[in-house]
Amino acid sequence: MATQMSREIAEQPDAIRRTLDSLLPVREQITALADGRRRVLFVARGTSDHAAIYGRYLLETYSGVLGGLSSPSVATHYKSRLDLSDTLVVCVSQSGETAEIVESEAWARDCGAVTVAVANVPGSPLTRSANLALVTQAGPEHAVPATKSYTTQLLAMAVIGTALAPEPTALDGDLARVADEVERLIARADVLDGPVAALRDSAYTVVSGRGLMMGTALETALKLEETCMRPVRGYSYADFRHGPIAVVREGMTAILVAAQDGPIVGPMAELAGDVAARGGTTIGIGGDAAFADAVTLHVPGADLPETLAPLGAIVPAQMIVERLARELGLDPDSPRGLSKVATTDPDA
Amino acid sequence: MATQMSREIAEQPDAIRRTLDSLLPVREQITALADGRRRVLFVARGTSDHAAIYGRYLLETYSGVLGGLSSPSVATHYKSRLDLSDTLVVCVSQSGETAEIVESEAWARDCGAVTVAVANVPGSPLTRSANLALVTQAGPEHAVPATKSYTTQLLAMAVIGTALAPEPTALDGDLARVADEVERLIARADVLDGPVAALRDSAYTVVSGRGLMMGTALETALKLEETCMRPVRGYSYADFRHGPIAVVREGMTAILVAAQDGPIVGPMAELAGDVAARGGTTIGIGGDAAFADAVTLHVPGADLPETLAPLGAIVPAQMIVERLARELGLDPDSPRGLSKVATTDPDA
Repeated sequence: MATQMSREIAEQPDAIRRTLDSLLPVREQITALADGRRRVLFVARGTSDHAAIYGRYLLETYSGVLGGLSSPSVATHYKSRLDLSDTLVVCVSQSGETAEIVESEAWARDCGAVTVAVANVPGSPLTRSANLALVTQAGPEHAVPATKSYTTQLLAMAVIGTALAPEPTALDGDLARVADEVERLIARADVLDGPVAALRDSAYTVVSGRGLMMGTALETALKLEETCMRPVRGYSYADFRHGPIAVVREGMTAILVAAQDGPIVGPMAELAGDVAARGGTTIGIGGDAAFADAVTLHVPGADLPETLAPLGAIVPAQMIVERLARELGLDPDSPRGLSKVATTDPDA
Repeated sequence: MATQMSREIAEQPDAIRRTLDSLLPVREQITALADGRRRVLFVARGTSDHAAIYGRYLLETYSGVLGGLSSPSVATHYKSRLDLSDTLVVCVSQSGETAEIVESEAWARDCGAVTVAVANVPGSPLTRSANLALVTQAGPEHAVPATKSYTTQLLAMAVIGTALAPEPTALDGDLARVADEVERLIARADVLDGPVAALRDSAYTVVSGRGLMMGTALETALKLEETCMRPVRGYSYADFRHGPIAVVREGMTAILVAAQDGPIVGPMAELAGDVAARGGTTIGIGGDAAFADAVTLHVPGADLPETLAPLGAIVPAQMIVERLARELGLDPDSPRGLSKVATTDPDA
């Protein structure tokens, strides 16, 4: 019997099409709202934070705009007064009601920011309070692990990134292909047999990516950890190389995510070789031909440029997580101890 | 026989005194350099990044200045052109020669930033190229795990934070007490028996902190991982609560770090209770009386305000790491696979 999570994975092409149709007409309002602002600050947590990490890299590497990730406690606990009069603040929350994100949005406006809400629930508190609301069209998501709400958040990030780029429409042809590419990836469940078996037998698993794919690595690690109940760690390529690669040994598995082009895929292929030399197994998602050769097991990503690659690469990762959970005898739809609305502070 | 790491831990009071004497006279130059700049961006990696995380929180919660952490790949791989004409960029590297940090410093100046170098080696590339060099006075560090170079980096962050605060001298009385507090903590090796034994027998270990103590949590996790060869994870309080707390169970140990005052210690005590309720063991470093009561095993921190608490709390953590490594039959001075100068890209 299909799980809710697998159904929601399959709904992604339609969710992406609806979200693109809904958000592209709003793009000029984002551009107008950001007029005169010099930087963008993202406020998010968990899966939404992984979408924000992509948004930040897209702004800095494609749009030419300085981005940053806020620390919510600065708003919610320290209640600092900072000057955000030159800043566009983007608040991301699937439910639109995560208390600390809602509180941070109000704080940002008090500090002089203009704000954009990215949420999946129309009429939610975040969408009502922000200067501009981008409502993703994933529809209700029932499985606890976020899938279609995450890919549509990524799409919202892409719309924001293009809105602030010198030529907002330059990526529109590629944006229009995203849903088809996701559909194609969903049809390729056959390539996941090896990776799922390797992860099932892995003593310790890490996930690594860099730059535009960094959020994908972190999201893959979080999903594996919270859905499959195993400690799994997401590292940037650099932090991985900078120390923890020392703990790689036989029986360990590294999932490496990469785009098919751009300046990162070459170093990621080298990293795959280094992990192998230390006795580890590598599962590569995406990348180019050299990357596919360098990893132990390869899963194709989307045929999309690096700027949009995260919208494709997460899909096989979701499918791996869903299947691995079932093989481990777990219910991917409702992992132990997690609820759908994020609550950072139980008393907040 | 004493290890090099234990000797360098013991040298910290003197290293801190020398660094304070050296940097306080430069504080006015930092204030002058930052004049007219609206924000601070930190560039660092690994242990230095953990110091930068403290620096960023100190700026945002104490100095009233917006901070941020850069993604080095934006400079080194994507070679983005960003407008940093309103930004002070602080580059942190123990050796002062980590290639990607040196490259990022040049990139930041090209983008219009003024730059401060924080390095432990006088005359190193980073200190020569930056607009202003803050040379920490830890002296040569021979053990691979950074100890005295890290605490003196933290002190440099405190000097920068106070330089940009409305009243730069307001914390000077507390700054003058840091070395004595560290000395007092070093003398209390007796309180570490229980924590070392618990960690030796722990199936899985995490470290958590929040706000000003976030960098301390990440640094403690990194040191345990790279020195004791165990996968250990550092989480923000919020990210821990937001999902991965689901994997806490009997046999797992959470190290929680907290300051004795401020808005975070209360929630950290609650977190200790939640971990205990799920069957985990907690080791608390620092905190107040309620926090000490809430954890399974307690290690006192320094008698310093939250703004400076990270300079004390890391010291018992270093001592735990050094002793645990020896009990595990490992050499804390030279963990496998790590070298002293950080190299992110082997071909860079």
